[in-house]
Amino acid sequence: MKKIKIRAYEVLEKVRLKKPVVHHLTNWVTIETCANVVKVLGASPVMAHAPEEVAEMAGIASGLVLNIGTLTVDFIEAMKIAAKAANKKKIPVLLDVCGAGATHLRDRKSFELLDEVKIDIVKGNASEIARIAGEEVKTRGVDAGKVKKDLLLLAKGLALARKCTVVVTGKEDIVTDGERLYIVKNGHPLMTHIVGTGCMAASVIGTFASVNEDMVYASTCGLVCFEIAAELAAAGSRGPGQFKEKLYDNLYHLDKNTIDTLQKVEA
Amino acid sequence: MKKIKIRAYEVLEKVRLKKPVVHHLTNWVTIETCANVVKVLGASPVMAHAPEEVAEMAGIASGLVLNIGTLTVDFIEAMKIAAKAANKKKIPVLLDVCGAGATHLRDRKSFELLDEVKIDIVKGNASEIARIAGEEVKTRGVDAGKVKKDLLLLAKGLALARKCTVVVTGKEDIVTDGERLYIVKNGHPLMTHIVGTGCMAASVIGTFASVNEDMVYASTCGLVCFEIAAELAAAGSRGPGQFKEKLYDNLYHLDKNTIDTLQKVEA
Amino acid sequence: MKKIKIRAYEVLEKVRLKKPVVHHLTNWVTIETCANVVKVLGASPVMAHAPEEVAEMAGIASGLVLNIGTLTVDFIEAMKIAAKAANKKKIPVLLDVCGAGATHLRDRKSFELLDEVKIDIVKGNASEIARIAGEEVKTRGVDAGKVKKDLLLLAKGLALARKCTVVVTGKEDIVTDGERLYIVKNGHPLMTHIVGTGCMAASVIGTFASVNEDMVYASTCGLVCFEIAAELAAAGSRGPGQFKEKLYDNLYHLDKNTIDTLQKVEA
Repeated sequence: MKKIKIRAYEVLEKVRLKKPVVHHLTNWVTIETCANVVKVLGASPVMAHAPEEVAEMAGIASGLVLNIGTLTVDFIEAMKIAAKAANKKKIPVLLDVCGAGATHLRDRKSFELLDEVKIDIVKGNASEIARIAGEEVKTRGVDAGKVKKDLLLLAKGLALARKCTVVVTGKEDIVTDGERLYIVKNGHPLMTHIVGTGCMAASVIGTFASVNEDMVYASTCGLVCFEIAAELAAAGSRGPGQFKEKLYDNLYHLDKNTIDTLQKVEA
Repeated sequence: MKKIKIRAYEVLEKVRLKKPVVHHLTNWVTIETCANVVKVLGASPVMAHAPEEVAEMAGIASGLVLNIGTLTVDFIEAMKIAAKAANKKKIPVLLDVCGAGATHLRDRKSFELLDEVKIDIVKGNASEIARIAGEEVKTRGVDAGKVKKDLLLLAKGLALARKCTVVVTGKEDIVTDGERLYIVKNGHPLMTHIVGTGCMAASVIGTFASVNEDMVYASTCGLVCFEIAAELAAAGSRGPGQFKEKLYDNLYHLDKNTIDTLQKVEA
Repeated sequence: MKKIKIRAYEVLEKVRLKKPVVHHLTNWVTIETCANVVKVLGASPVMAHAPEEVAEMAGIASGLVLNIGTLTVDFIEAMKIAAKAANKKKIPVLLDVCGAGATHLRDRKSFELLDEVKIDIVKGNASEIARIAGEEVKTRGVDAGKVKKDLLLLAKGLALARKCTVVVTGKEDIVTDGERLYIVKNGHPLMTHIVGTGCMAASVIGTFASVNEDMVYASTCGLVCFEIAAELAAAGSRGPGQFKEKLYDNLYHLDKNTIDTLQKVEA
């Protein structure tokens, strides 16, 4: 692995110009936060979960973000309908396996989604991804638990097995399709002191993937932009409250020079 | 049309003194934001959607706000029960046709509500209102799409057809009952860079209508106050994050002199 | 009653060290705010309501917070499953009787919960607690209505009848198990000008109770910390918007010296 430079700004600029509609079926905790981060990027979030309309909504969308954070059985069924419509239209589908490894329901429904529809990007923290990769780990609710095996190998194996891009967020983020591999080393500890940064990362990645066909690259660019904004937001913040507000402000104003200067990516 | 002065502060003052309970059945994205804007105005929001209690809740409320942003079939049925109770009690009912024109479900359920209960105020952006007025337009999820016909005529026609007040939000807002017409030219572009400003406007209007029987006038006064607060909030804000925080603060402190000086209304 | 000193910081420190998972079944309005306040305290919130997983989630949790703010009949059934699992594991269960006294559904479901599962802490505002104690009062939606009888006696009676700790929030908070009694006089009027401070208080208390077996003491310590942070946040805030942001920041940074100096507790 060695340090490389990516053109993350180009993808961000494409988001701002194309303003893609990004359809979400997400959790009820951070739903406004997810919508807001998409909006602040310059794109157009739409949150809709009625089984009668999710397929039609996918029709006007350029990307689909699924997050099982507050799943119910019915809600997962609506996700499947939305994902099948997205698959048909060939727009990217991201699945945030939020809380996988915490309960059997979350594991089972994550596997169902992966088996029944095409997921282009699977995103989670270390223990969530380890669980989806088949390990016996325990997630602490929605916060990461301990993973014993080599996370890189688990992520690559999952990507190959599921033919998708895998994103593991943490102090260092892993993005891989099983062959290519990017490590993003941006970010700030304050991100773990508010709820929603993981969900926001998923929405940002889903938005970037909506305008760029290379999922591994789009995911990496999205993470780089999001986490640079977090670094800028954390600098001089009084605490987690002000940090979140500034995170929006810094994402909104993020420019090429800042991204080029601050990015920490290895490949 | 020429510039006029309205006494928006008088209605705001009435809200602060009477502290009306404003019942909402709204979307899950901006539900806290809607409740908060009502609270910051000095009124008392209540969010309740169980079919077993919505009629009783209308009984202690002075106004009802319906927003179909994350509708389901069951949720619309609860709205109908709530609205019928509100109609019986003769308290104002506002319907935000959020996302009408994006899916057939939203169109159909909007028409059902308009047909089956008395809606006093219909509120939406340009393409949502055009759709409800019978035009074939496409809303971009919950963001406005393009409308070809004259929006003023569409709004007036809808108001007359449905015997209600119609509010179209945008760079310039239209408020009409088909005969009287107000144009509100306050507001700030930052309002379109966070989610929830449209929903907040609906909650503000619903709150103002709860203390003032003249729906056209109350809606106009509500928009004027909300958008002046937005102008003040935007001045000197770092970005959309700080803008939202300051929007609450400026609404909370809004005074007569500021409203009288900054209002831009035509009639 | 006379002024006493409690070691609230010790319990806060225990929260920060143990980082308990606090499971919530709460309302859709302030769900993110509740999760965030738990996170900012240093603990780990998890929001999960699917009947298939709530018992298992209680298995990894150290405390359970129930809030009926946007109840439905099904949601209450999920609460019962979660609470029974929590009872079996002997972790504390807090019930926020949000909106009790506003509708018959809320009263009936509150009583059902109290009858069918073991609730360790019942929390509400004056009219909510009065209603649950058997008085005929009317709550203004989710805001407190007037209570004629002596609130202290009502709270004590409820605690004895239900064998639980009762917390009544207001300008002065009451914490009692029917025998012991604490009055917390911290707090700030701005707390009543945003939505969610009552729900946050419940989540804070539930978090403190997760690391301290003495429910009366843990509740008092939680309220003291939360309300001191609110006092600090209010000082110099532009208004309710900035107040909420600063509330998180001040909770996050709260230290022993500040708590020891500012606490206003009587026993």
